Amino acid sequence: MTTSTSAPSADPPVVVVIGAGLVGASVGCALTAAGWQVHLRDSRISHARVAESLGAGSTDVPVRDEVGLVVAAVPPLALVEVITHALRSYPNAVVTDVGSVKASVLARLRSQQADLSRYVGSHPMAGSQYSGPMTAHPDLFEDRTWVITPHPQSDPAAVVLVEQMITACRARQVRMDVDEHDAAVARVSHLPHLMSAVLAGHLTALPTEQLELAGQGLRDVTRIAGGDPQLWQQILAANAAAIRPELLAIRDRLTAVLTALADDPEAVRAHLETGVQGTQRIPGKHGAAPVAYEHVVVEIPDAPGALGRLFTDVSDIGVNVEDVSIEHDQTREVGYLSLAVTTEQAEALRSVMAEAGWQVQP
Amino acid sequence: MTTSTSAPSADPPVVVVIGAGLVGASVGCALTAAGWQVHLRDSRISHARVAESLGAGSTDVPVRDEVGLVVAAVPPLALVEVITHALRSYPNAVVTDVGSVKASVLARLRSQQADLSRYVGSHPMAGSQYSGPMTAHPDLFEDRTWVITPHPQSDPAAVVLVEQMITACRARQVRMDVDEHDAAVARVSHLPHLMSAVLAGHLTALPTEQLELAGQGLRDVTRIAGGDPQLWQQILAANAAAIRPELLAIRDRLTAVLTALADDPEAVRAHLETGVQGTQRIPGKHGAAPVAYEHVVVEIPDAPGALGRLFTDVSDIGVNVEDVSIEHDQTREVGYLSLAVTTEQAEALRSVMAEAGWQVQP
Repeated sequence: MTTSTSAPSADPPVVVVIGAGLVGASVGCALTAAGWQVHLRDSRISHARVAESLGAGSTDVPVRDEVGLVVAAVPPLALVEVITHALRSYPNAVVTDVGSVKASVLARLRSQQADLSRYVGSHPMAGSQYSGPMTAHPDLFEDRTWVITPHPQSDPAAVVLVEQMITACRARQVRMDVDEHDAAVARVSHLPHLMSAVLAGHLTALPTEQLELAGQGLRDVTRIAGGDPQLWQQILAANAAAIRPELLAIRDRLTAVLTALADDPEAVRAHLETGVQGTQRIPGKHGAAPVAYEHVVVEIPDAPGALGRLFTDVSDIGVNVEDVSIEHDQTREVGYLSLAVTTEQAEALRSVMAEAGWQVQP
Repeated sequence: MTTSTSAPSADPPVVVVIGAGLVGASVGCALTAAGWQVHLRDSRISHARVAESLGAGSTDVPVRDEVGLVVAAVPPLALVEVITHALRSYPNAVVTDVGSVKASVLARLRSQQADLSRYVGSHPMAGSQYSGPMTAHPDLFEDRTWVITPHPQSDPAAVVLVEQMITACRARQVRMDVDEHDAAVARVSHLPHLMSAVLAGHLTALPTEQLELAGQGLRDVTRIAGGDPQLWQQILAANAAAIRPELLAIRDRLTAVLTALADDPEAVRAHLETGVQGTQRIPGKHGAAPVAYEHVVVEIPDAPGALGRLFTDVSDIGVNVEDVSIEHDQTREVGYLSLAVTTEQAEALRSVMAEAGWQVQP
C-alpha cells in the first residue's frame, strides 16, 4: 500500500473512472469541478468521449504509477473483474466502486487473491431512471447519502482517500459494513423497485381507455420501474438473499389487506395508517434532520373579509409557515387555523398576531 | 326535471358545492373564476369560511328554487345521503358528485327512490396527498381527465349541464358507464394506493440508519401512501369487489418474482422489461397523445472539442430535441448520437447538420 501519504488535506490524487455511464460520468464531472485530475475509460469509446465533452475528465491514457484512485463504475456483473484488474494495473492506487451491492462482490474479490488492503467499496444513493453519460451532472451527489463500506483488510489510509473523494463530490458520508449495507438497500431500494416494476407490469394488461384515467399517483409509483432492466436484474441477482425475506413480508401484508378488504374496514384503515406512519419516517429530501415545529392556533373570524386579512397579516409578518391546517370546534361552531412554524418563530408570531387583534390561543 | 333550458351556451346555473375540502373548494374556485355563482356548504363552517376567503364562492344561503346545479364533494360514506338530500332540497337542480367510486353509490341511490333523472355522477382525476380547503386551487383540474358517468335514467339535459361544469373547470371529459369507471380506477388508482401503503407500512419496521439510505425512488413510490386513511378506507371499501382480483393478480406476480429470484435471472429480467413497457403505456402528463418522433443520427467526432461544437450546433439550430442517446459500433470503434425530434423537424435538422460538416446518417 503506497497511498499512505494521502490525507484529507493532501493534494487530490490522479483518478481513473472506469465506466462513463450516468454515475461514472457524474463522478468525473464532480471531481473535475473540484479540481481533481480525472481520466475516463469505457469499453464503449463513444460514451467516454461524450462524458469528456461534458467535462467529466480526459480520455487520455494516464501514467499508470501516478494514478492514486480508481473508481469502478460498471454494472454489477463486471465489477469483480474490473476491480481485480484495476488493483493489478495501478499498483499505487486505491480502488473503490459505486456498485449497489457489496457483500457478494467482496466475497468474490477475496477468492481472487487480490490486494484487498487497497480496496474500499462505496455506494452513492443517487441516480435516475436514465442511464448513459448524456444525463451526467456534477451535482448528482450533492447532499445525497454516499455509503462507504470498509472491510477488515482495508488500509485506513485507503478509507481516508475514498472519504476525500466523497467529500469532493459534496455527498453526505455514512459508514456501514457490507452486510448492513446490503440489508438496508434491499429494503429502501431493491424492494421498492420490484414493487414498482410489478405494478407497472400489471399495466400492460390494461386497455388504453383505462390508462387515460391515470393521475400523478400512478406515475410516481411506477417511475422507477422505467430503470434499465439489464442493470437491475444484475443488482437483484447479487442481493437476492437479502431481498427474499422482504418480498415475503410484503406478500404477507398484501394477503392481510386482501382478507381485510372483504369484511374488516377497521383493519384496512389500520394498514393505511401504518402506511402514513411509514412515509413520515423517511428522512427529508437531502437527508436533513426533521425540524421541530410548534403550532400557533388562531381563531377563524366570522367574516370572510376578516379571514382574508388574517392570511395577509400572517404573510406580512414574514415567518415561514410550514403547514396550515383547520381545526373545528363542533360544539361552538367556531374554527381555528393551526399554523406550523419553527419553535424559534412561534413566540414572535403569537405576539404579533395578538397585537393585530386576532384571537390567539395561548 | 326543470333544467331542460340548460345548454352548453346557456347562462351558467347557480351552483351549490357541498363539502369544502380540497376538491370541493377547488371546484368552487374554478367555477367562480369562470364567472359562475357558487354557494358553499360544509358541516364544518370553518372549512366553508376558509374556502370562501380563498375565492371558492359565498357562504350565503342561496334561494333554493334558483339553484341549478349541486356538486356533492363529500367523503364516500356520506355521498348517498347528501345526494338524496340535495335532490329533495333543490327541486330545480341537477346533482352531481366527485366521488371516486360510482356503481355502489348509484345502486344505493336507486334504493332511495330519489329522482335519478336529475343525478349524473362524475369523477375528476385530480387531487393530492393533502386534504382540506387550504390547498384548493382553481387550476387543480386544468387538462386533467374528468370522468362523467351517466346512467340510463339520466336526463340528457342534466348530462349537458355537468359537461358544461367540467368544461368550465378546464378539465378533459371522458364518458364511461359506472362499472367501467370503477374497474378502471381500481387498477390505476386504488391498487397503486394499496401497493404504496403496503410498502410504506413495511418501512415502520426499519431501523433509522437504514432509512437514511432512502433516495428519491422510495419517496416517489410511497408518496400517495401519505393520503388520508379515513377517506381511503371508504374508497377501498366502496370498490372492494373491483380491487380484489387486481390485488390477487399482483400477489401472483410477486410470487413469480420470488420464484425467479432464486435461480432464473432471465425470468427476473422479463418481469423488469414488462415493467418498463407498462410505464411507457401511461399517457403523457396531461393526457396528451404521444407525439411521433424521428431519430437523426450523427457520427460522434474523434476529438472532444469537436463534440462540444456538435452540441452547440444542435442547440443553435433551435429544434426541440426530445431525447439524445448514444449508439456504439463495436466493430468500427465509432459512436453515434441519436437525436429524437418531431417528424416535422427531422429533415431540417438533417440538412443543417450536414451543411455544417457533420456526418449525418441518411
